[in-house]
Amino acid sequence: MHFKKVAVVGIGLIGGSLAWALRKSGRVGEVFGVDVDERALSYAIDKGIVDRGSNKIDEVRDSEVVVVATHVRFIPEIVSSLSCIGLKDTVLTDVGSVKESIVKEVERRLPSDVYFVGGHPIAGTENSGVWFSDFALFKNKRCVLTPTERTHMRALEIVTAMWEIVGAEVFIMDPKTHDRVFGFLSHLPHVVAYALLNSTELDEDSRNFVGFAGGGLRDYTRIGASSPDMWSDIFLANKENVLLAIHRFKEALERIEVAIKKEDEKELKSELGKAVGVKRRME
Amino acid sequence: MHFKKVAVVGIGLIGGSLAWALRKSGRVGEVFGVDVDERALSYAIDKGIVDRGSNKIDEVRDSEVVVVATHVRFIPEIVSSLSCIGLKDTVLTDVGSVKESIVKEVERRLPSDVYFVGGHPIAGTENSGVWFSDFALFKNKRCVLTPTERTHMRALEIVTAMWEIVGAEVFIMDPKTHDRVFGFLSHLPHVVAYALLNSTELDEDSRNFVGFAGGGLRDYTRIGASSPDMWSDIFLANKENVLLAIHRFKEALERIEVAIKKEDEKELKSELGKAVGVKRRME
Repeated sequence: MHFKKVAVVGIGLIGGSLAWALRKSGRVGEVFGVDVDERALSYAIDKGIVDRGSNKIDEVRDSEVVVVATHVRFIPEIVSSLSCIGLKDTVLTDVGSVKESIVKEVERRLPSDVYFVGGHPIAGTENSGVWFSDFALFKNKRCVLTPTERTHMRALEIVTAMWEIVGAEVFIMDPKTHDRVFGFLSHLPHVVAYALLNSTELDEDSRNFVGFAGGGLRDYTRIGASSPDMWSDIFLANKENVLLAIHRFKEALERIEVAIKKEDEKELKSELGKAVGVKRRME
Repeated sequence: MHFKKVAVVGIGLIGGSLAWALRKSGRVGEVFGVDVDERALSYAIDKGIVDRGSNKIDEVRDSEVVVVATHVRFIPEIVSSLSCIGLKDTVLTDVGSVKESIVKEVERRLPSDVYFVGGHPIAGTENSGVWFSDFALFKNKRCVLTPTERTHMRALEIVTAMWEIVGAEVFIMDPKTHDRVFGFLSHLPHVVAYALLNSTELDEDSRNFVGFAGGGLRDYTRIGASSPDMWSDIFLANKENVLLAIHRFKEALERIEVAIKKEDEKELKSELGKAVGVKRRME
């Protein structure tokens, strides 16, 4: 599939990487970028990440796809505002890490003749901003799309095609399942990474010797360095699932803690062995 | 400094990597390996990781340094047994991740004319066994040595020289501080990684979709795949500090959990921001 024009609203790490990958594919006539941050926009234009750009959202008109790639909290507002600028034959999609609240809100607000498909590419790094864009970011990564009964098949096909152009493999999930699963698989690990880093602050010795952290703790620092603004939005937008995941995690932690306390070696090894099994199934 | 003979007892990932690095340095006349596992030993000999090897520990005689690189639980026993084979001018050291209990036990058992220095190289991977040996494993890594008032300066100098030969930077810490610090910086992250992987098992959806884990959870899988036998030993050998670290971690987790529950965005961002600060100081 070829596109005449694709617009990306919000040229950060994800938006910039997507725009760049689409541009490099040679299968999109024009990649148009929108951002309110002039520095980000000039960078994207100078670097060839987008063909053209603007800080005015109504210039996305005539795009076949508009991808909203802002922080989670702004997505419903921006998607809804797009419906007012008279889009015809344009499919709207997003890249938010949370889907149920966004999809619900967007579907509540959008007129029925404007097409929207929720999306979430499973890619990213601890860095934020267009300066970290990587045109290979989505290559061989998964992208989850979350159509509902209101979603038009054609719109789903178009968004699927766009992600396939940048090398992603598309999976379908309903928004509710998506939020449950990623509450565990993505949001919880971030909560835990932040808490783990903070726990070293609660102990004077480990605070002073934090430079001695080996690979173990360093593995956590990648996601523990992720943008607090972005992640507090995500945790709050997926509040119930994140709290459930924290609850389950505390249960799992408690089992290990109790086994250590009781010096129950058999139970301890069994818990650790279970984790190794989960890891294997993840690969 | 040059050595005529260095022996490594326990040719696993750490022992194998150390032996190999010493051999490659050209500054050790003979690197001698001891392991009860015939397969590990033949592999080490065939691959040139050691010059010679044996399953009999008394063949380490005439070594200037004997490094005990077995699982934590066997270290005091093995070090003590070495004192019976008539070592003269030999310095004993170990690579255990826990120091206080090992050093105490060894010093209690060793005659005062046998020299021991506790050691802990801050290096390793999730893999175990000589097959994963890497002669560059210690290059530019830290190695903590934990002398006590009983330690002979000359013995400390010799063990320091050995680690410097393989590219490590040596730091001195007392055994008590070591265990406190690494309880937080190394053992706790392992506990948390295991618990995090297990928590996905407690939820049917996330169990079924575990293949969707992105970089976030995958970062944890490295250490969550570490040997349950080895790590249950470590957790139990450093029980008090590990339990303290888990306790502090739960406090840090609770702060984030409560902020999410109350939708207290300011507090939530402040907690996440604090973690980013810790991460920066770690680099």
